[in-house]
Amino acid sequence: MIAREVEFEGHLIDSNILPKVLDLILDLDGEFEITEFRIGKRKEDTSYARLIVFGRDENHLDELLKELHKLGARVADAEDAEFAEAPDDRVLPDGFYVTTNNPTFVRLNGEWIEVEDIGMDRVIVVDPEGKRAYCRFLNEIKKGDLVLIGEKGVKIIPPERPRKSTTFEFMGGHVSTERPTPNVIKAIASEIVNLKRNGGKIAVVAGPAVDHTGARDALAGMIRDGYVDVLLSGNALAVHDMEISIFGTSLGMDIRTGRPVPGGNRHHIHTISKIIAAGGIKQAVEKGIVRDGIMYECVRNNVPFILAGSIRDDGPLPEVVTDTMEAKKAMKNALKGVNMVIMLASMLHSIAVGNLLPSVVKTICVDSNPSTVTKLVDRGSHQAIGIVTDVGLFLPELYENIKELEKES
Amino acid sequence: MIAREVEFEGHLIDSNILPKVLDLILDLDGEFEITEFRIGKRKEDTSYARLIVFGRDENHLDELLKELHKLGARVADAEDAEFAEAPDDRVLPDGFYVTTNNPTFVRLNGEWIEVEDIGMDRVIVVDPEGKRAYCRFLNEIKKGDLVLIGEKGVKIIPPERPRKSTTFEFMGGHVSTERPTPNVIKAIASEIVNLKRNGGKIAVVAGPAVDHTGARDALAGMIRDGYVDVLLSGNALAVHDMEISIFGTSLGMDIRTGRPVPGGNRHHIHTISKIIAAGGIKQAVEKGIVRDGIMYECVRNNVPFILAGSIRDDGPLPEVVTDTMEAKKAMKNALKGVNMVIMLASMLHSIAVGNLLPSVVKTICVDSNPSTVTKLVDRGSHQAIGIVTDVGLFLPELYENIKELEKES
Amino acid sequence: MIAREVEFEGHLIDSNILPKVLDLILDLDGEFEITEFRIGKRKEDTSYARLIVFGRDENHLDELLKELHKLGARVADAEDAEFAEAPDDRVLPDGFYVTTNNPTFVRLNGEWIEVEDIGMDRVIVVDPEGKRAYCRFLNEIKKGDLVLIGEKGVKIIPPERPRKSTTFEFMGGHVSTERPTPNVIKAIASEIVNLKRNGGKIAVVAGPAVDHTGARDALAGMIRDGYVDVLLSGNALAVHDMEISIFGTSLGMDIRTGRPVPGGNRHHIHTISKIIAAGGIKQAVEKGIVRDGIMYECVRNNVPFILAGSIRDDGPLPEVVTDTMEAKKAMKNALKGVNMVIMLASMLHSIAVGNLLPSVVKTICVDSNPSTVTKLVDRGSHQAIGIVTDVGLFLPELYENIKELEKES
Amino acid sequence: MIAREVEFEGHLIDSNILPKVLDLILDLDGEFEITEFRIGKRKEDTSYARLIVFGRDENHLDELLKELHKLGARVADAEDAEFAEAPDDRVLPDGFYVTTNNPTFVRLNGEWIEVEDIGMDRVIVVDPEGKRAYCRFLNEIKKGDLVLIGEKGVKIIPPERPRKSTTFEFMGGHVSTERPTPNVIKAIASEIVNLKRNGGKIAVVAGPAVDHTGARDALAGMIRDGYVDVLLSGNALAVHDMEISIFGTSLGMDIRTGRPVPGGNRHHIHTISKIIAAGGIKQAVEKGIVRDGIMYECVRNNVPFILAGSIRDDGPLPEVVTDTMEAKKAMKNALKGVNMVIMLASMLHSIAVGNLLPSVVKTICVDSNPSTVTKLVDRGSHQAIGIVTDVGLFLPELYENIKELEKES
Repeated sequence: MIAREVEFEGHLIDSNILPKVLDLILDLDGEFEITEFRIGKRKEDTSYARLIVFGRDENHLDELLKELHKLGARVADAEDAEFAEAPDDRVLPDGFYVTTNNPTFVRLNGEWIEVEDIGMDRVIVVDPEGKRAYCRFLNEIKKGDLVLIGEKGVKIIPPERPRKSTTFEFMGGHVSTERPTPNVIKAIASEIVNLKRNGGKIAVVAGPAVDHTGARDALAGMIRDGYVDVLLSGNALAVHDMEISIFGTSLGMDIRTGRPVPGGNRHHIHTISKIIAAGGIKQAVEKGIVRDGIMYECVRNNVPFILAGSIRDDGPLPEVVTDTMEAKKAMKNALKGVNMVIMLASMLHSIAVGNLLPSVVKTICVDSNPSTVTKLVDRGSHQAIGIVTDVGLFLPELYENIKELEKES
Repeated sequence: MIAREVEFEGHLIDSNILPKVLDLILDLDGEFEITEFRIGKRKEDTSYARLIVFGRDENHLDELLKELHKLGARVADAEDAEFAEAPDDRVLPDGFYVTTNNPTFVRLNGEWIEVEDIGMDRVIVVDPEGKRAYCRFLNEIKKGDLVLIGEKGVKIIPPERPRKSTTFEFMGGHVSTERPTPNVIKAIASEIVNLKRNGGKIAVVAGPAVDHTGARDALAGMIRDGYVDVLLSGNALAVHDMEISIFGTSLGMDIRTGRPVPGGNRHHIHTISKIIAAGGIKQAVEKGIVRDGIMYECVRNNVPFILAGSIRDDGPLPEVVTDTMEAKKAMKNALKGVNMVIMLASMLHSIAVGNLLPSVVKTICVDSNPSTVTKLVDRGSHQAIGIVTDVGLFLPELYENIKELEKES
Repeated sequence: MIAREVEFEGHLIDSNILPKVLDLILDLDGEFEITEFRIGKRKEDTSYARLIVFGRDENHLDELLKELHKLGARVADAEDAEFAEAPDDRVLPDGFYVTTNNPTFVRLNGEWIEVEDIGMDRVIVVDPEGKRAYCRFLNEIKKGDLVLIGEKGVKIIPPERPRKSTTFEFMGGHVSTERPTPNVIKAIASEIVNLKRNGGKIAVVAGPAVDHTGARDALAGMIRDGYVDVLLSGNALAVHDMEISIFGTSLGMDIRTGRPVPGGNRHHIHTISKIIAAGGIKQAVEKGIVRDGIMYECVRNNVPFILAGSIRDDGPLPEVVTDTMEAKKAMKNALKGVNMVIMLASMLHSIAVGNLLPSVVKTICVDSNPSTVTKLVDRGSHQAIGIVTDVGLFLPELYENIKELEKES
Repeated sequence: MIAREVEFEGHLIDSNILPKVLDLILDLDGEFEITEFRIGKRKEDTSYARLIVFGRDENHLDELLKELHKLGARVADAEDAEFAEAPDDRVLPDGFYVTTNNPTFVRLNGEWIEVEDIGMDRVIVVDPEGKRAYCRFLNEIKKGDLVLIGEKGVKIIPPERPRKSTTFEFMGGHVSTERPTPNVIKAIASEIVNLKRNGGKIAVVAGPAVDHTGARDALAGMIRDGYVDVLLSGNALAVHDMEISIFGTSLGMDIRTGRPVPGGNRHHIHTISKIIAAGGIKQAVEKGIVRDGIMYECVRNNVPFILAGSIRDDGPLPEVVTDTMEAKKAMKNALKGVNMVIMLASMLHSIAVGNLLPSVVKTICVDSNPSTVTKLVDRGSHQAIGIVTDVGLFLPELYENIKELEKES
């Protein structure tokens, strides 16, 4: 058996890190010996642990350390990070390092550098001269890029349990069903208002159910009132939102009665044709073709939106980014500086956005399907709240609560 | 091949009866020849069809006729119904007739008699002297009862599509998802208010999620305002409702914050013990132990309630009918004269109640699980509406809409 | 009130067409009078109906006729179809006609021409000189194209109930739950074998759950044995399939034990990098990098595959069509001549493919989520069968049954 | 602020106990100071922690200690347990103690006594003379019983993570979706075979979907081969099982084709009537009326079964325990000595049984609905495995695997 010493620091116990470390070693048939353990005496104190990890052989130990690394393990005697040249465009050198969504630092010439734009399942390109490190998608790698290899000289800060008494501290990481929904909404409204008062930025990811279920006016109101800094969606949400403005229907269904309208199946194609004829969404708003709703408020209030294409799209609208890799990149850029993401009834876009987010961004996922909500919250940390409910009732209620909180202050 | 002539009358086409008839004959490898067909020229006219059904042999033809019977087929040359004595308690004579949930008539001594208390999957006991016929559960059959056998001399009125422009005409038989929920609620509120103004009776079936999700005050309000004529539920709804009144928690969860309260897991057992000590729910209300909520309003407003026992129950409360067959009978009796049933987040009780209802009673099923709603609506006719939503947001919104309609008038 | 006479022909009753016609008129507040009705006396006979439809005014009547048209209504005195020039690229003339997914004919110079490549929610471009008519996506329309307008001179053949006693006749249009799954699989195996024996073409749409749940070897076997003519999928299915071949894991999970493998989260990125380095999937198979599985069998057996991009993709693989509109077009072309589509655990791709299919193509949808299956079957006709089950058990069982049927013959 | 010292012992870290303790104190706004902490150096070592808990006042501290108690906290200076007389039948003294489902000890006259028949949400009756303590349902309490009050002198052993490398160690506490189902089944088969070889007892809880989906023969086989020690179910499973034996249908559906059989809706009532006429299930088997299936094998192999009544039941069969409280008690008694419970597609009965089980009993829950599986696994510990799949394919495959394992040995 061979061994190596690693160390951990932080809220190791109540943020569940040390238990995960020991679990993992047991899961992978390793052994451990704790050589030092200083527990924080009070809740504001951090803890420190040093332990020797034993593996069957070099390979096994290496596997153990790779996994421990993701939980924040640092090799006690820190060395510089290693890297190698990409042999070709979009081809990685052997032993390349894959990122987590946690804040990550690499040691270059004895100095710890934070990796920029961190996100999950990507690689790290380093610039030792410029003392910088970047997180990159595989398809952004160019021949000759210096790609990080191995875990040596790489440090991760795993997510800790929120300390301040917030909704996220209590509900974080959980999916809410069978809870007092009206009161849960009240708590979330208060989180949103506080975040905006403190200068935070909010992204909304929304699916077309927002149009169909009667939540559209509430979302339009939130955009108008400044609660949405960027909108991430697809062709369908925008088409049906403008279809409502032009024809009063969403996918041919009268939005007031829920009944299909005769000839209504033409409306969404007609809407797209009209917007194309106008030159785009912005022009359609300016020309008075679209007079209210989500896209209208985005244009009027200069709220940027990204409409990512999908193979299900009709049309699509001129603003839709039909190339999926370009759409992904645009979404990644739009998410820079965002502190909270609200995901509304949109599995495809929500999972895509979830994959792009660093672990520190708060997320609120609302969907009527418990499986979708579970999937979205699972990949998150304590920073994700899932609510299984009907977005058509949720969003109007949320907006009402936000407006009342504004009045009160 | 042997053949028999049958006839049908009613809205055979737009209520989908004739297509079902022909489908069925094809499904069962029979043949048909239409000998007479008079179609209603306008929508208020009924149609008439007479056709010869061919089967391979006596048995096959008999099977065909048994199934056609359920769609309203009458043998052209009507004969009297046949019956036989039950050989023992709860034992049926050979060839016994099983009921549908549709209005049913039997021909006794040349006269058509309506079967009383009709409901699905039961048998019919006739009293030729008294010129009456009763629908009975198997376990109500006594030795010597005259039990109807065969389909001869039995006539069914299959459900027709509602004519007047109501929510049921449009949404009946469908499960609503991706519809404008706020507007669907408005339409249902209006159905409820109209039905009560016309002297109709409403039963509510409710599960404990009504307590957990924040819908309790709305249901209590609807009882207080006279919109509920009878409440069908179980031990859990009543326990948690009164737990909220006594401790402010539902299954130990603070109803205002959604958080578990320390020691809260004792509350529901404590609540039951207190109610038993008081002598029952009524006494607990009178003694001021229970001061608000669903059970409080039932007692104060003399709204009868039936709490049916289940093997999951803690306690149970003294009013719970622990014998399932007695509970079923009590529920059947309570449903007499009811015109509408509202089913709220309660699969077990809703399916049980659904089985007890004649096809003419309107039902509205609300549940967050689409499978539950589909199951409930499937067994219904055009008279069932299913809504997949969160009862915690649905019911408060429904009650608000009802109150506004009241104000308007 | 104004009126117009329309006529219908076909299996109007048992295929449920006439009831839908009358329903629709009632739903839209129209009136009707049936002037002639000849019902087929036996099941192989067709029926004929002629009726006068009344609307409140010209607009109302027009709406009524637009909807009746989709059910196959022909104006009794047929006129030629009308068309207009597209004013610009991707811009439609007023009153453009939107397609259904049913076989469609247009009348040009007194002659009925079948529309080529019919599919839902598109428009029709006519070539009166060449006596041809084409179904086109909005974004394929060029300035000056002659686009069909109005319903005049357009004839639709709505789907009829399958006559021959097949699985589709019985289960078509339904979602199967609580049925004897092993026997349902047996029936489907027999449909597949028969279709192939008669020279039919089968497309498979598959999601990555095929890899995760243990169904991969069965799908690979079906491709090897010639049961799959084209594979429609995305990046993830192909990546994890080849990850299994190279690393024995699917998304880092050991496919034999279901447990995550240490360092496994690197495997899918590593797989993509290796395939890119090899020059693509075909080359990776030829170079012996990929030695078994779904993609291996596609390459070895010259079965074409289309991998459509999505914003969730990592990499992606070189063969992935990242532009969604190009991917959609490629999928449409690949579906030409296909008689059956098997959809396996893939909501996004299945819905996209479903939108592209004419109503006459048989579809079998398998998913563990009842909502997904319902969505897919709802948009279909009698030609769609939905099965709610676990693809990881379903596909191996299906393949076993297919192999046994082969042995028997 | 006031304080109290508590201590914990066991696998505090890798079984996640200490983190939960600190979480809880933070959740409830308490404070803590760790005064002693000895961590197990190797995985077989236990740990020991002593900490001072601070509350705002006596009440707050009491609440904190009540909750910590459930995690195994012992007051450092142990005192005897306290108790009080029940003031009346089914009425509890103030401050009564509510049980968890974990092994529990009470200190009587300085001696730790294990509570017999432990189960969740009940109370403890002590017999200080006889040195015994019993876990009782509320409705079993008689006036004068000595009921445990407070947490003083009560010790709980919270569940620890399974150590030996078993399926439960790895999958315990999780719901399996998107895993290689065939291999998961193999692992479970091996657990079952091992447990039986070591003399373990297995209970099966089964719903009527076992009959409908084609899993009946596999369950019958497992009973015949001695893998089932007791069967817990309801009226429907038994009725449809015997309906298959007598008529070849399950709820009127031909079990070979999945199609409804003409006149089939009479079959289940007919089956019940026949069984009643025979005198019961045992007699029906002996008289040759029922010749195969689940109930047949139970009777032939003397496997006890309990059929608990529900308000949905038709009939019911003579063996059905219609009183829910009696049924619950019978199920509790039948579960004595059982080491594993397999729950098959039965929400009502599975949740009822889950409530009756001590935390140390292994449970395997199989259902096609992820919400049901999640609910069942959530209330469990590491000892519960949930599998979202189709029982109609799962059970035959499981039985095949069991038979192969038998052959191998």
